[in-house]
Amino acid sequence: MYECLVDGEISRYVETTNRGLNYGDGLFETLSVMRGRPRRWQAHMDRLGAGCERLGLPMPPQAILLRDVQTVSAGLAATVVKIVLVRSGNGRGYSPSKVSSCVRIVSAHAYPQGLAHNAEKGVNARICKLRLAIQPALGGMKHLNRLEQVLASSESIGDDHTEGLLLDCENHLVSAISANIFLVMGELLLTPRLDQCGVRGVLREQILKAFGSRCEQRRIMVDMMTEADEVFICNSVRGVVPIVSIDDLEYPVGPVTREIQSWLEKCEAS
Amino acid sequence: MYECLVDGEISRYVETTNRGLNYGDGLFETLSVMRGRPRRWQAHMDRLGAGCERLGLPMPPQAILLRDVQTVSAGLAATVVKIVLVRSGNGRGYSPSKVSSCVRIVSAHAYPQGLAHNAEKGVNARICKLRLAIQPALGGMKHLNRLEQVLASSESIGDDHTEGLLLDCENHLVSAISANIFLVMGELLLTPRLDQCGVRGVLREQILKAFGSRCEQRRIMVDMMTEADEVFICNSVRGVVPIVSIDDLEYPVGPVTREIQSWLEKCEAS
Repeated sequence: MYECLVDGEISRYVETTNRGLNYGDGLFETLSVMRGRPRRWQAHMDRLGAGCERLGLPMPPQAILLRDVQTVSAGLAATVVKIVLVRSGNGRGYSPSKVSSCVRIVSAHAYPQGLAHNAEKGVNARICKLRLAIQPALGGMKHLNRLEQVLASSESIGDDHTEGLLLDCENHLVSAISANIFLVMGELLLTPRLDQCGVRGVLREQILKAFGSRCEQRRIMVDMMTEADEVFICNSVRGVVPIVSIDDLEYPVGPVTREIQSWLEKCEAS
Repeated sequence: MYECLVDGEISRYVETTNRGLNYGDGLFETLSVMRGRPRRWQAHMDRLGAGCERLGLPMPPQAILLRDVQTVSAGLAATVVKIVLVRSGNGRGYSPSKVSSCVRIVSAHAYPQGLAHNAEKGVNARICKLRLAIQPALGGMKHLNRLEQVLASSESIGDDHTEGLLLDCENHLVSAISANIFLVMGELLLTPRLDQCGVRGVLREQILKAFGSRCEQRRIMVDMMTEADEVFICNSVRGVVPIVSIDDLEYPVGPVTREIQSWLEKCEAS
């Protein structure tokens, strides 16, 4: 980690009473920042705002968050910036106080290596054993309760190059552990609805907006994956990554995935 | 909060990279400590050990945890001590490192007021709107992912005297927000199975051991609550508390609840 601000002050510490630590009572965003410019900033802010509204947290002004992001990424060509918003209060008693405020933690991290290689060649994937719980009160939200993702990641310790895919407890496909997923069927782009679990990724939203007429958000049973022509995953830092296998199924890196990658490249260059 | 130890050192801070803060990747225990003696110590340690095993965390030696508990509660007649165990590591990437270690946070807090009054007179309860998700991988465990409990508590902000009761998404009774629940039917004590959600409380376990032949762990549909003769909740700090109403249903403080309270009083005096 390069630098970290807590409520705008340089610090690497939070209090042990922090409600994020004690309950996971908060939200986060992970941004790709290029020469001080966060990509998809408004989409990140919109999602954070929607999460704040659902949790009853007051959203800090965007200008303050942007200043924090620019401070921690100053002088860096490419960096990942994580914003964590936690409800203020002490760590005993679940009940939030009547008037909530937020602690904001903004930190810069090394940009991952090998992204271009993965985007070109694709990655292998496996279906995780862990099934995501169905919880409409939290579905789609990028909140801090991430034990399911930790447990799913633990299934393949030592095999970091295989992407874990998550199904819910009714065996619907939801996402990769930290990316959204699309199945390509002909010209059609199918992606799971995320009203019951999973995280509504900002790049997923951007794809849904740009390719709306060809996209469908729906429940995807696991056996539909045999019918897909192509599969790709996406997240804000990693971009669009082809999936070349899921367990024993193999997929080509096909023209639709390449089309979305080209579109993204143009978006990010502008 | 009176005092706090982080890995045995006096501190009120943890790093912003803490996996408890970022993912809720850890466990906690809340103990009642009387003149430096933690009640139900072995039961708390057993539960913590079981949780560590499920999450793949190394349990710190009990002697070290006991020393921390005694240090933070030194000189206090009655105190609540919270133990938080968090997986070590940094806050980027869900995957735990191959060899996990733990950060331990042990803090003392004021003993709640009014417990004797509630135990005598009972408390009112309501059914929360929020339904608990079903997640066998986490069911029964006292882990740090507690957003459901925060949201359920938020439903009645300003009405702190009403106990919130939680159902799962299939409308089975699970628990109170931070206590277990028993329904009394004749001589029988029914309590929800907690394999799919909820927390296996140590006082619940102690009651199940002591009154085993009269106890049944089962799925309890919400409409069975109309048939109960008595209802009580229990947790390690608050003891056994009669429920005198659940929404429009009323219950007496009956002889079985009083019997369990007397038994507990004797246990805790010895």
